[in-house]
Amino acid sequence: MLRIRKTFGLLLFITLLLIGCSNEIKETKENPLPSWNNSDSKISIINFVKDVTDKNSPNFVETEDRIAVFDNDGTLWSEQPIYFQIGFTFDRIKELAKNHPEWKNEQPFKAVLEGDKKAIADAGEEGLFKLLLATHTGMTSTEFAQIVKDWVVTAKHPKLNRPYTDLVFQPMLELLEYFRANDFKTFIVSGGSIGFMRPLTEELYGIPPEQVIGSSYKTKFEIQNGKEVILRLPEFEFNNDKAGKPVAINKFIGKKPIFASGNSDGDLQMLQWTSSNDKPNFMLYVHHTDSVREWAYDRESHIGKFDKGLDEANEKGWTVVDMQKEWEVIYPFELKK
Amino acid sequence: MLRIRKTFGLLLFITLLLIGCSNEIKETKENPLPSWNNSDSKISIINFVKDVTDKNSPNFVETEDRIAVFDNDGTLWSEQPIYFQIGFTFDRIKELAKNHPEWKNEQPFKAVLEGDKKAIADAGEEGLFKLLLATHTGMTSTEFAQIVKDWVVTAKHPKLNRPYTDLVFQPMLELLEYFRANDFKTFIVSGGSIGFMRPLTEELYGIPPEQVIGSSYKTKFEIQNGKEVILRLPEFEFNNDKAGKPVAINKFIGKKPIFASGNSDGDLQMLQWTSSNDKPNFMLYVHHTDSVREWAYDRESHIGKFDKGLDEANEKGWTVVDMQKEWEVIYPFELKK
Repeated sequence: MLRIRKTFGLLLFITLLLIGCSNEIKETKENPLPSWNNSDSKISIINFVKDVTDKNSPNFVETEDRIAVFDNDGTLWSEQPIYFQIGFTFDRIKELAKNHPEWKNEQPFKAVLEGDKKAIADAGEEGLFKLLLATHTGMTSTEFAQIVKDWVVTAKHPKLNRPYTDLVFQPMLELLEYFRANDFKTFIVSGGSIGFMRPLTEELYGIPPEQVIGSSYKTKFEIQNGKEVILRLPEFEFNNDKAGKPVAINKFIGKKPIFASGNSDGDLQMLQWTSSNDKPNFMLYVHHTDSVREWAYDRESHIGKFDKGLDEANEKGWTVVDMQKEWEVIYPFELKK
Repeated sequence: MLRIRKTFGLLLFITLLLIGCSNEIKETKENPLPSWNNSDSKISIINFVKDVTDKNSPNFVETEDRIAVFDNDGTLWSEQPIYFQIGFTFDRIKELAKNHPEWKNEQPFKAVLEGDKKAIADAGEEGLFKLLLATHTGMTSTEFAQIVKDWVVTAKHPKLNRPYTDLVFQPMLELLEYFRANDFKTFIVSGGSIGFMRPLTEELYGIPPEQVIGSSYKTKFEIQNGKEVILRLPEFEFNNDKAGKPVAINKFIGKKPIFASGNSDGDLQMLQWTSSNDKPNFMLYVHHTDSVREWAYDRESHIGKFDKGLDEANEKGWTVVDMQKEWEVIYPFELKK
C-alpha cells in the first residue's frame, strides 16, 4: 500500500513538473489572445477593443452596436484543399448512391463516385449545383440538421486524416471569446449554407444559430400527416457572397458591424460595408501564408480569387494577419495540454 | 423657517398618502405582470415560465432554447383602424405628392390625396402595392430609417389624436420584460416591413434590430461616389405572413420557439410551428374584445380574417387572452403615475 502511494506520489510529481515545463497557452485577462504573438495585428486588435469599450474614450461604442462579423471558410476554419461543405457533399453523394444506381453513368455524380477530379472540374458550376441540390434539399430542415451532425462525427479531412472540426483556427477562437467577453455580439457571415453551418457553429465557435448568416435554399412550411415541417426545396434562394454579404448583414442584423474579418474576394464588400460605419471600425484580413502548418495560397487558388480583397486591405491600411508569422498555433490540437 | 418645515412635512404626508391610495401598477418579482388581472391566462403564463426555468423540473429548457416570438400589429400594438405602416404610407404619399403633381390625377395616389376611402379600397391589393413601392423603396436603407424616425415623432393616430407609438400594449410590454428577465430571447415576427419596424422596436419594446423579422423588399449593395450604400429596390422580396412566418423563423433564428403570440390568421402557422416543438411550449392568442378601450373585432374585419386562428386556438387549448376581461390597462398612458 505504502509502495503504491509512493509510486503515485512520484507520478504526480513528474506530471506536475511536466505541466510546469510545457508551453501551455492560457487565455488570461492580461493576455486574451495567447496564440497570437505580440505582432502589430494583436496590438491593433487589443487597442481597438480597449478603445471602443472605454466609457471615457471619444471612440466608445455602446454595447448594442458592438457587432462583429466573421466569414467562416478560410477565416474561422481551413478551406483547403476543398471547402468542408464540398467534402460533405461528396461524402453524401457516395452515401446516397446506394439508392441511385443511375448515378454510375450520370455526370457529375459519376465523377464524384470515381474520384475523377478532372471530370468534377469539367462539370463546372452547373455540375456543382446539381451535386448541392441532390445532397442539400428534398428533406425537412430537422432531417438535414441531423444528417450534418451524423456526418461530422465520422468524416475525416482528406489530407490530414482528422475530423474536419479539428481544423478551426485557435487564434480566431480566442478572438471570438475576447470579443464576447467585451460584450460584442459575434456573427458568422459565410458563403456556406445556413443549414450546413448551424448544426455545428454553437459547439465549434460558441455562436448560436440565430447569429449564423449564409447562403440558402428555398423552403416551405407544410403539415405532413398532422406534423408541421419545413421542407428544403431544390431551388437556390440566396448566394451569400461578395455584394450579397452586406445585403444579408442589413437584412439579418439591421446594423452596420464595427468589426469584420475575412480572407478572400468574397469578403471584400462586407469589409467595405463595415469600413463605412460612422463609428470606429476594424477590418481584419486573414492572409494564408503558412505552407507547412496550413496552406499558403495567395491571389489565385482553385477555390477562389483573393487578389482584390488583399489589394484593398493593403491599400486602405486594414489589418492583414500573416498567419505564418503572427500565429503561434494554428489549430487547437497543437496546443500542449 | 419652522412654519415652512411644517407645511413641507404636511405636503409630504399628503403626497405619500395619495401615492398609497392610487392604483399604481408596479412590476415586482412577486407580480411580474401587474397589468394583467389574476385570470387564467396570467396564471398559465407564470406557471409556464416558472416550469421551464426550474432546473429541477422535467420541463426545464436551457437558456439558448428560450426563444419567444411575437407578432407585432394587433399583438404588441393596436392595428385599428388601419395598420400603422399604412398610416405611414398615406402620410408619405401626401408628403411626396409635392414632387409628383401627376399623382393628382393618377390612382391610387389620387384616392389617398383626397382621402377617398372607397377609391382606396377599390384599388385593391395591386393599388396598395403601388403605394408601398412608391413610399418604401428607391432610397438607401439609412435614408429610409431616418424617414421612419422623423415621421413617428409628429405622426398622429387618425382616431385617437395621439402618437402611434403611444398605442403599444402595456400588458405585452410587461410580458416581454418578464420573459427577458427569465433569459428568454424575444423576437418580433411580423407581416410589417423589416425596414419600417427596426427604427422603432428597440425604443418601444427593447427588441434590437437583429431580433426583428418581417416582410422585405429586395436590396442591393453599391458604392455611390465612393460611399457604400444599401439601395432599397422597388421589388417585393418576402411576405412574412401565414406560412411565411415559420419559414422566416427557420431562416433567421434556426430554432423552434417555445413561445409564440399572435392575434390573426396570419399568425396561425407560426403558432402551429411553435406547438410542434418537442420542448414544452406555449401559444398565446390575443383576442380583441374591448370596444371601449381598444377595438373589438372578431373573425372578420376590414384589416383581415381572424376565424381560423381563433378556432384552432380554442380547439387546441392554446391560451386565448380576452383583452377586455383580462387586461387591467391597455396602453401605458392609462397607468396612473
